[in-house]
Amino acid sequence: MFQLLHKDKTSKARLGKLRTAHGIIDTPVFMPVGTQGTVKTLSNDELKTAGAEIILGNAYHLYLRPGIELIRRAGGLHKFMGWDRPILTDSGGYQVFSLATLRRLNEDGAEFSSHIDGSRHILTPEKVLDIQEALGSDIMMVFDECVHYPAAKDYADKSLELTTKWARRSKERFDVSEAKKRGQLLFGIAQGSTYSDLRARAVKELLNIGFDGYAIGGVSVGEPRNLIYEIAGLTAAILPEDKPRYLMGVGMPPDILEAIARGCDMFDCVVPTRNGRNGQAFTFGGDIQLRNAEYKEDFRPIDERCDCFACRNHTRAYIRHLFNTNELLGLRLVSLHNTRFYVKLMQMSREAIADGRFAPFRDEFVEGYNKGSE
Amino acid sequence: MFQLLHKDKTSKARLGKLRTAHGIIDTPVFMPVGTQGTVKTLSNDELKTAGAEIILGNAYHLYLRPGIELIRRAGGLHKFMGWDRPILTDSGGYQVFSLATLRRLNEDGAEFSSHIDGSRHILTPEKVLDIQEALGSDIMMVFDECVHYPAAKDYADKSLELTTKWARRSKERFDVSEAKKRGQLLFGIAQGSTYSDLRARAVKELLNIGFDGYAIGGVSVGEPRNLIYEIAGLTAAILPEDKPRYLMGVGMPPDILEAIARGCDMFDCVVPTRNGRNGQAFTFGGDIQLRNAEYKEDFRPIDERCDCFACRNHTRAYIRHLFNTNELLGLRLVSLHNTRFYVKLMQMSREAIADGRFAPFRDEFVEGYNKGSE
Repeated sequence: MFQLLHKDKTSKARLGKLRTAHGIIDTPVFMPVGTQGTVKTLSNDELKTAGAEIILGNAYHLYLRPGIELIRRAGGLHKFMGWDRPILTDSGGYQVFSLATLRRLNEDGAEFSSHIDGSRHILTPEKVLDIQEALGSDIMMVFDECVHYPAAKDYADKSLELTTKWARRSKERFDVSEAKKRGQLLFGIAQGSTYSDLRARAVKELLNIGFDGYAIGGVSVGEPRNLIYEIAGLTAAILPEDKPRYLMGVGMPPDILEAIARGCDMFDCVVPTRNGRNGQAFTFGGDIQLRNAEYKEDFRPIDERCDCFACRNHTRAYIRHLFNTNELLGLRLVSLHNTRFYVKLMQMSREAIADGRFAPFRDEFVEGYNKGSE
Repeated sequence: MFQLLHKDKTSKARLGKLRTAHGIIDTPVFMPVGTQGTVKTLSNDELKTAGAEIILGNAYHLYLRPGIELIRRAGGLHKFMGWDRPILTDSGGYQVFSLATLRRLNEDGAEFSSHIDGSRHILTPEKVLDIQEALGSDIMMVFDECVHYPAAKDYADKSLELTTKWARRSKERFDVSEAKKRGQLLFGIAQGSTYSDLRARAVKELLNIGFDGYAIGGVSVGEPRNLIYEIAGLTAAILPEDKPRYLMGVGMPPDILEAIARGCDMFDCVVPTRNGRNGQAFTFGGDIQLRNAEYKEDFRPIDERCDCFACRNHTRAYIRHLFNTNELLGLRLVSLHNTRFYVKLMQMSREAIADGRFAPFRDEFVEGYNKGSE
């Protein structure tokens, strides 16, 4: 299922291949976020042209709207949204503990009020597994409690205990599911907040249960950047070599390279599209804010070295005009460029790993990026 | 410049070819509206794939934002927006008398406050010609006073007098302009409200001045549908055969076919994109409102006979979900489909004219469309 192809000589970076029901993914990989069954503003064709190998959907959002029965009748999420490449679905744990209003949390599951209409719902590990079975995602995530930062150790400890119990129940449901028979994969999520001993315990218990891959969750929840790197590094170091490692919700371009250097393989983040919709464009020379007056008469593309539709056809001045006049094409062009940038950064990372020069590649990129960013 | 290829046997419909600096246009033609240098939500590639031969830009909006000097420095509107096919620019007459706050109107021109920031501006026929020269549009429109409905005859008469004087001054400026040397065309606009004798006088005076083409303006300004057809018909009937006739701002699909049957060649309207952004989709079986609950589990495309990206890849149920969740892809997909529908309707109209069966084609379409519309 996961093949480790190569280990970088200059860092802990790894090159791999992950086989799923809808195709093979080269790792390290970035997964554009398609929360509600669409990567915001972009078409499936544009995602493919940008080189996206896999996208992320969200069980919580899709469960609320349009509802799982509708997607089941449509033939699953792939058919519903017209996307034929792999999909990973987030379990909703993060959303229940951030977006929704949590009403009750106990060993059975979580009761919450929808952020859309206040309606009451209960999610349990088993129900979340069933939802993702209906969605038909290639990679399913276990339901977990996502602990925010900062968290007292006592709280993080108790929370981890619950998350581990839920992980075991998820696996038990998975083992007798249609999902497993159909080749859907299930990933466990290591929590433990910022405590290295809790992280170690989380990993040990998950390994005892056994999953197709392992995610590092509960990061990028408000903690300082260095702490993200530290947790990613210490958790990745104790995860098995022969399984993919997914660092959830990270991050800005330098963050991803730092995490790759520490042995992480898979990434998702709303940054390329969300920040794109605010006019922030990513380039190898740093990020720029296209609304700024300095781009008023800048007739260069966002990035002269970029091969995306926006950079081949449009100028910074034009895109700035689109933002100034609230034209939706502006949101599209920058989201498209940023998605292409993230995918390209992963492609270049894989080449650097294959050539055994990932650490210098990262150093050069991060230095140039930070120097040029606004 | 304009070649009349064929006259329909069953109506006054005409088949023609219009030669511009950026290419040849087959008429009858529909021009998608790109007010601010972008056809809302759509990329240039999508417009081309949909078959758009020419688009419309708006001098008033572009003059206010991003400003003419910026577009001049970008090398004209084509280069600024990255569109290499023909562009027609509206003169701003309609916007000054509808969108802006008119401050003073006299023989020299119109003083108004911008609808964006209240700033004061003066537009004269000469200035509007200069603006369109800088934009580099293939077809420029004269500055006119657009009279709304209903208008007293006395007012319409005086207004027409002013519009005619402005038309003459526009032509005089045009005759000594760089625009003319570069092959930009200038169209006159016949006003005269709903009064047939004023329309006749408008046409007679415009013909005395002499333009590359003639528009019928001051329609679709609140009058009943039959009056649009009547004015279009009586004005087209007295326009010269060897020049293109442009019915401004019309309209819904049946309106356009009725106008073609009365001898009009060119059309523009915000309906395919504006209504598309509200979820209204056009089909040969009528228009449908995709937000409606009846499409919740409708897994058919918008129109099974349509070859657009939306219809080849997505279902009504999915698009309804996108509207329900405020996802911009929904606006894109319906705008794209509707634009393709309008272009396709023109292609089919041209075929029907060439075959000498436009009247029955129109009758069949209008009957089916009206019967199936919501």
